[in-house]
Amino acid sequence: MSDHPPDPDRPHATRHGPEHALERLIFFSDAVFAIAITLLVIEIHVPELPHGASDVAFINALLALIPNFIGFIVSFFVIGAFWGGHHRAFGCAAHWHDRLMAPNIQMLLAIAAMPFFTAFMSEYSNQRVPVVAYCLWLLVTALLNVRLQRAATRAPVVDESVSAETIRRIGLRGWATVGGAVTAVVVALVSPIPFAAQASLMTIPLWRWALMRATREKTA
Amino acid sequence: MSDHPPDPDRPHATRHGPEHALERLIFFSDAVFAIAITLLVIEIHVPELPHGASDVAFINALLALIPNFIGFIVSFFVIGAFWGGHHRAFGCAAHWHDRLMAPNIQMLLAIAAMPFFTAFMSEYSNQRVPVVAYCLWLLVTALLNVRLQRAATRAPVVDESVSAETIRRIGLRGWATVGGAVTAVVVALVSPIPFAAQASLMTIPLWRWALMRATREKTA
Amino acid sequence: MSDHPPDPDRPHATRHGPEHALERLIFFSDAVFAIAITLLVIEIHVPELPHGASDVAFINALLALIPNFIGFIVSFFVIGAFWGGHHRAFGCAAHWHDRLMAPNIQMLLAIAAMPFFTAFMSEYSNQRVPVVAYCLWLLVTALLNVRLQRAATRAPVVDESVSAETIRRIGLRGWATVGGAVTAVVVALVSPIPFAAQASLMTIPLWRWALMRATREKTA
Amino acid sequence: MSDHPPDPDRPHATRHGPEHALERLIFFSDAVFAIAITLLVIEIHVPELPHGASDVAFINALLALIPNFIGFIVSFFVIGAFWGGHHRAFGCAAHWHDRLMAPNIQMLLAIAAMPFFTAFMSEYSNQRVPVVAYCLWLLVTALLNVRLQRAATRAPVVDESVSAETIRRIGLRGWATVGGAVTAVVVALVSPIPFAAQASLMTIPLWRWALMRATREKTA
Repeated sequence: MSDHPPDPDRPHATRHGPEHALERLIFFSDAVFAIAITLLVIEIHVPELPHGASDVAFINALLALIPNFIGFIVSFFVIGAFWGGHHRAFGCAAHWHDRLMAPNIQMLLAIAAMPFFTAFMSEYSNQRVPVVAYCLWLLVTALLNVRLQRAATRAPVVDESVSAETIRRIGLRGWATVGGAVTAVVVALVSPIPFAAQASLMTIPLWRWALMRATREKTA
Repeated sequence: MSDHPPDPDRPHATRHGPEHALERLIFFSDAVFAIAITLLVIEIHVPELPHGASDVAFINALLALIPNFIGFIVSFFVIGAFWGGHHRAFGCAAHWHDRLMAPNIQMLLAIAAMPFFTAFMSEYSNQRVPVVAYCLWLLVTALLNVRLQRAATRAPVVDESVSAETIRRIGLRGWATVGGAVTAVVVALVSPIPFAAQASLMTIPLWRWALMRATREKTA
Repeated sequence: MSDHPPDPDRPHATRHGPEHALERLIFFSDAVFAIAITLLVIEIHVPELPHGASDVAFINALLALIPNFIGFIVSFFVIGAFWGGHHRAFGCAAHWHDRLMAPNIQMLLAIAAMPFFTAFMSEYSNQRVPVVAYCLWLLVTALLNVRLQRAATRAPVVDESVSAETIRRIGLRGWATVGGAVTAVVVALVSPIPFAAQASLMTIPLWRWALMRATREKTA
Repeated sequence: MSDHPPDPDRPHATRHGPEHALERLIFFSDAVFAIAITLLVIEIHVPELPHGASDVAFINALLALIPNFIGFIVSFFVIGAFWGGHHRAFGCAAHWHDRLMAPNIQMLLAIAAMPFFTAFMSEYSNQRVPVVAYCLWLLVTALLNVRLQRAATRAPVVDESVSAETIRRIGLRGWATVGGAVTAVVVALVSPIPFAAQASLMTIPLWRWALMRATREKTA
């Protein structure tokens, strides 16, 4: 195309080669995370009311959606946290390798399915099976996340200048998420209190703190 | 992968390190804004008419969708304006910091929920509660926007070469949006006129102008 | 965040400043185009058949979706063509200017609404009003496209090294799309033949050829 | 905009010219792949159960969705694999050419329609027509993929430094996918066993291996 004459001054290596391949993978993953997180809302359906309904009826209809909003918010932060983990792990990556493909696409599959499990759990928030299913899926996602982060922060992918401590921390954060998901599965199985399992995801920072502390002591 | 041999001539610093982390955050945010803004339309449902319906019936069915189109257009410009604010604020950012994560994901959550509130308001455009709910959500979004812009335009994130005047202007624009949202909430609460609250969002440029003027006089 | 220490060797100018602002606009626009084009398919609903239905019943159900598929394909190429025009016009842009914001967001609004008009037209492909509405919206989009391309290929945005001939061609292509949309509106108004209006969009290359020829002769 | 003064130190060639045009095409394609792959899940609908339903009823409702999950997972890996092929082919591209536009947009159209065919097949997984339709669409996609990869790995687009062997391998992988799709069409036509056609897609690595072996022997 004559509109875009070749540019001899710019070595194509700046766009091609291993780093660009890595970047496309990151880009594609970012897009999947962003779409999954934004699709969560389309599972919150506009309530149907007669057109002359009172303000009170409308307020009640909104209040009835609270479980759906809680589900939306919990999953928003869950996907956001997994995205943060992807961001951290690939921030250490410097070299493309084909072996990244499989764990990455499997992790993305788990993320892409979150809107379904969120909608299922939100619709039946006081039922055991949907909540357990949600928490189990979270556990699967957390394990796939650990596997992908490991692939991104080990040779031959990792940037050799990244410190072992940084990689260790990323690993601990990944395992803390697994810990939180296991906690949520257990709570979902035993507790009849609505939202108890979702709330138990707040143990993730505790798990992180505990794991950091435990391994730091070991190192010292 | 042998197809992508490592490129020793290109320092990995150009892709990794703090700026790339910042770019991924911006990229992810752009994607969420873009998806939320484009999802708005799927809440406008194709009218159902008998297949032998007259042209007049079809025109009436389209006219009945006018509130939905107004809702779509208003929210399109609202999300577009928040994107513009994100664009301006992060145009001043130069250094990655973990502290950006929380305000950014919370702002994106507010944006991602806009299609729901838009559909709710559009469906019941002459009802007080859906319109107030929409305007309140807008107010929440505007406040989260101010908080995020502040994080992006202060140390340690800000590019030190950005002038204080530029940062001041971004802040004023953010507060003008808060002002417009407050106006809309008040109008939605008191006015029975359909679309009065949405129309009052047009006071945002007035708020901007007023705030610019007020603070400029103070400085002079 | 200690994981991403500042990188003093890399001047922030490579990521910030006018070009990065332009790139974010292009990026955001690309995402909206991509989402709108991919959302087209969700308006093709899976046919509902009794579970013991015969192969013939299934084939008939698929054949009944042909108008929806035609609508999908036409709009896919229409949005793809507008994306191509955006791509060409912004390939000439080198300097960010705030004045790009308004025409760009208005153009994106027109694109984002295409899935609705496509679904409406596909659902009632033998009705005058939905087809005229689709073609009129296309005309609006084509005019907003001309306006945006003009903004991107004129001072102060344009890259000064781009030839006047390149810019002239982009303008002609934009006007050819307007010509095709006008043709489609007229055909939709007068012709009772299904898909005649959509087919008349194939006059766009003819319009382009005619406009190129007409203006080339004038120049010579 | 005074916030973004022009930057005279940075040659615009780094953003414009042929490589940026190529990148926008890749970017746009990545976004379409990512959206199509993530939209797959919205075709899995939350089961509707009475609110006092038993755990067993919920488990049965989930089990009834297994065909939908299989469809989701198969298509996720199918789209992921096509994305991988796009990634590999464009990893060899260095020069923009307008002739890339048509095969790329046609390939994206095929990808964007996958959620429909996936939902149709998943909904009627024990029916011949939906499964054959899915497999035929896969075959169309695989052929469009071969055509696009050919355009991206031949002059004038290809990076001249890419080895003939790399290009040959990409071509073989593309044809292996065609082979797998043909196998799936045949199996879908003759086999009454549910999911036999989908399972036969697992022959793609066999086809790849066979084609690699056959052509390697020929070369030797």
